[in-house]
Amino acid sequence: MDPLTFVLFGATGDLAKRKIFPTLYHLFLDGKLPASFSVIGLGRREWTDNVLRTHIKESLNHFSKRFSEECSRMDTFLDAIHYVPLDVTDQESYNHLLKQIQKREAEHSIPENRLFYLSVAPDLIDTITTNIQKSGLGDGKGWKRLIIEKPFGSDLTSAQLLNKKLTSAFEESEIYRIDHYLGKSMVQNLEVLKFANPIFQSSWNPENISNVQITASETVGVEDRASYYDRAGAIRDMFQNHMLQMLMMTAMQVPEQLNASSIRQEKRKIMEFLQPLKKEDFNEHIVRGQYGPGKINGTPVVGYREEPGIEAVSQNDTFIAARLFVHYPDSGPVPFYIRTGKRMKEKSTRIVIEFKNRNKDLYKGKIDQAEPNLLDIEINKEGMSLQLNLKNPATKQIEPISFSFAANAKETPGEYELLLYDALRGDSTFFAHWEEVELSWQWVQPILEAFDEDLLPLHFYPSGSMGPEAADRLLEKDGFTWW
Amino acid sequence: MDPLTFVLFGATGDLAKRKIFPTLYHLFLDGKLPASFSVIGLGRREWTDNVLRTHIKESLNHFSKRFSEECSRMDTFLDAIHYVPLDVTDQESYNHLLKQIQKREAEHSIPENRLFYLSVAPDLIDTITTNIQKSGLGDGKGWKRLIIEKPFGSDLTSAQLLNKKLTSAFEESEIYRIDHYLGKSMVQNLEVLKFANPIFQSSWNPENISNVQITASETVGVEDRASYYDRAGAIRDMFQNHMLQMLMMTAMQVPEQLNASSIRQEKRKIMEFLQPLKKEDFNEHIVRGQYGPGKINGTPVVGYREEPGIEAVSQNDTFIAARLFVHYPDSGPVPFYIRTGKRMKEKSTRIVIEFKNRNKDLYKGKIDQAEPNLLDIEINKEGMSLQLNLKNPATKQIEPISFSFAANAKETPGEYELLLYDALRGDSTFFAHWEEVELSWQWVQPILEAFDEDLLPLHFYPSGSMGPEAADRLLEKDGFTWW
Repeated sequence: MDPLTFVLFGATGDLAKRKIFPTLYHLFLDGKLPASFSVIGLGRREWTDNVLRTHIKESLNHFSKRFSEECSRMDTFLDAIHYVPLDVTDQESYNHLLKQIQKREAEHSIPENRLFYLSVAPDLIDTITTNIQKSGLGDGKGWKRLIIEKPFGSDLTSAQLLNKKLTSAFEESEIYRIDHYLGKSMVQNLEVLKFANPIFQSSWNPENISNVQITASETVGVEDRASYYDRAGAIRDMFQNHMLQMLMMTAMQVPEQLNASSIRQEKRKIMEFLQPLKKEDFNEHIVRGQYGPGKINGTPVVGYREEPGIEAVSQNDTFIAARLFVHYPDSGPVPFYIRTGKRMKEKSTRIVIEFKNRNKDLYKGKIDQAEPNLLDIEINKEGMSLQLNLKNPATKQIEPISFSFAANAKETPGEYELLLYDALRGDSTFFAHWEEVELSWQWVQPILEAFDEDLLPLHFYPSGSMGPEAADRLLEKDGFTWW
Repeated sequence: MDPLTFVLFGATGDLAKRKIFPTLYHLFLDGKLPASFSVIGLGRREWTDNVLRTHIKESLNHFSKRFSEECSRMDTFLDAIHYVPLDVTDQESYNHLLKQIQKREAEHSIPENRLFYLSVAPDLIDTITTNIQKSGLGDGKGWKRLIIEKPFGSDLTSAQLLNKKLTSAFEESEIYRIDHYLGKSMVQNLEVLKFANPIFQSSWNPENISNVQITASETVGVEDRASYYDRAGAIRDMFQNHMLQMLMMTAMQVPEQLNASSIRQEKRKIMEFLQPLKKEDFNEHIVRGQYGPGKINGTPVVGYREEPGIEAVSQNDTFIAARLFVHYPDSGPVPFYIRTGKRMKEKSTRIVIEFKNRNKDLYKGKIDQAEPNLLDIEINKEGMSLQLNLKNPATKQIEPISFSFAANAKETPGEYELLLYDALRGDSTFFAHWEEVELSWQWVQPILEAFDEDLLPLHFYPSGSMGPEAADRLLEKDGFTWW
């Protein structure tokens, strides 16, 4: 790994405290940072190196499980971290920043490799990248990289506009868009599961798959994010990005090579194979929901419209379910059913692959139609189960049995550790490429408009349920049910 | 199930005590005997009904886990059991037996359905079936069935002779040859695993299977069976019957229907697809072994030639390994590796299916060639494990993981319960058909001759090992190892 400078905009913010510093520390403990590295934390506040270091130490104490593991090495880690106060709108500030970066580079013999991590409000991104360019911060002799967090726009047009601005300062190949679902180890393993396992090489394909179901359910409500969430809704907050990324990873076919560009090609194909929705068909394909009052784990909770900061007439979607068809050119379409929402019965992210049974006639009367083979991938629990059929020798009836596997969660690095390590190494496989972002917005755009124009009914569902009944009917018309 | 009379030859013997009476009692408790049934126990000894019933009660106390379960119902069960002394060579005895059977049939309104279970020495079978025929025991208005136990001959000629005699008294469709490996629930489930599971429908086929390994290893030595075993050897005791039956069940392709005749057809095909061995190739295909001294679970044991009753120069095989190829007409041959022996490291019967990896190039350097997908079926433990590949997200290396499933052994009926119940119902699916027996002897015959002519070396292996090293070399030439 090349020696580098990690330039963190928003170093005094919440994400830095909860995720970025703990992640850097874990990478450091695991020997996954270069021998020479420098971290420059930036913020509006007039902090000093020492204030930032004390702040980091406190965050680690709260947010790192490995805080006490090797305390003696913490000072070495903190020594590499410096603070520079910065007004992101003031170009002069950037000139000063450049000098500070260069000073550390000289001290530690670090080549001019600079990674800029923008952990800031979305409306500042444009300003910062423009100033990075103008100030010559990105004109060093080494490489430059940019890490940004979602949202990447709020509709197709705004996303295209944002990207235009980004790409005037950074090449696409220099931009690392974090979609933290792509950092989840089971999502990263979808490729391996499908392509490195002979059993699935011959069964996990359009010919043998009956349907795929992707569910991301939360038990929490809108929490303190009312002003953002009431404009975004589930469709922007979860569906356009995380859910469609999981769909691409699940549906992709075998890439020519195992590298970022081959995999990206296959992911793009899936978005191109995805049948676009026509407005007249929306009711057959999309269910919009909003949570009403109910109970979560036995505790009564209010409905969305009674949440602080939400208007009593809000039409916002806290739930969305979709019925999509991936039209693989050489075989029939495969249905994908996707749902995500807040205030649902359980917190869970899972991908269920249901396989077609080709010997139904042979087992007529002995096998229940409702007992297919299922591969159930639990993204958050990092486990899987495989449902197969066996005969109960006593009754001679066929019954489903379940094989299960649970990863050793202790040993699995978190999402940010996996993603930051990849960005430091220059591997963009598990970051959202602009093509994917744009194709996702394109697919979602008619739905956004239909929501705005109120062309789709808003189904209310009780908090603590699995969403509105209309979402069950989406599958029923194809002969399926949610697993 | 039709009301019937169960006529047991050898009612005072060991198998009756340990297996047959406990099995009948369990079937009775589970409501798996007809409402009206009569058991006639036969033996040379001058017992009475009451002596036999007391004897059965004692056997149940020793050999049934359900002895105390429903004591109140035991008398009802015992009431249906009668004893008739019989000299199997004396035809007069059979006339008396017929009268006794008819008397019970009249008393309990049982139609003349008679099932004859011959739990006797092999050399008496011919005499008994001839006398059954001559005495008119099998000429009732109902059906007749015959259950016999192995050995079914000791080579091709003797097996054919025995069968000729049997079929002069019983039709093939009336004969139920017990191979108790076919009564094991996991062996019965091979068909369901392959054909009722979409995941295996597309992967468990000649195109996608790299090889199959079947191992039946015992830790015991020859025990008190020297006089039989030293003439039979592993090849007659295990290989010709149990091992080849497991091969047929594992290798068979999808039958037209799920009935005895369709499944038998598919099993026969496998024996026909099996490449016959030529004498000049024996060394490439067969390994003959005999155990020497060694340790079993830390306890020293003597070698086979030092066992009581075994001659010091015995060339008998206590181990045999074979490399066989099943030539499916529409695809390449699939190698099957089979081994069985006494005084081995562990007691285990398992079938391991190794699948071909079609994406080896894609994962070059990331995946160890030695990490294929495996389905490991443990016949005796009634469990399975499935080895798949997953990426360790921390190291990015691909590592094998194991999914496992264990049947609830308490709930699984034993081999004899499954088999007797099927015979009572007239379902011969899990019995050895004459065609299978004959084809197995045909395939094995050249090996028997090679052993007799000493054309194959006898490899000695230490007790407590997994057999002679020569058995490992059988696979190595094809690039495989025993799992």
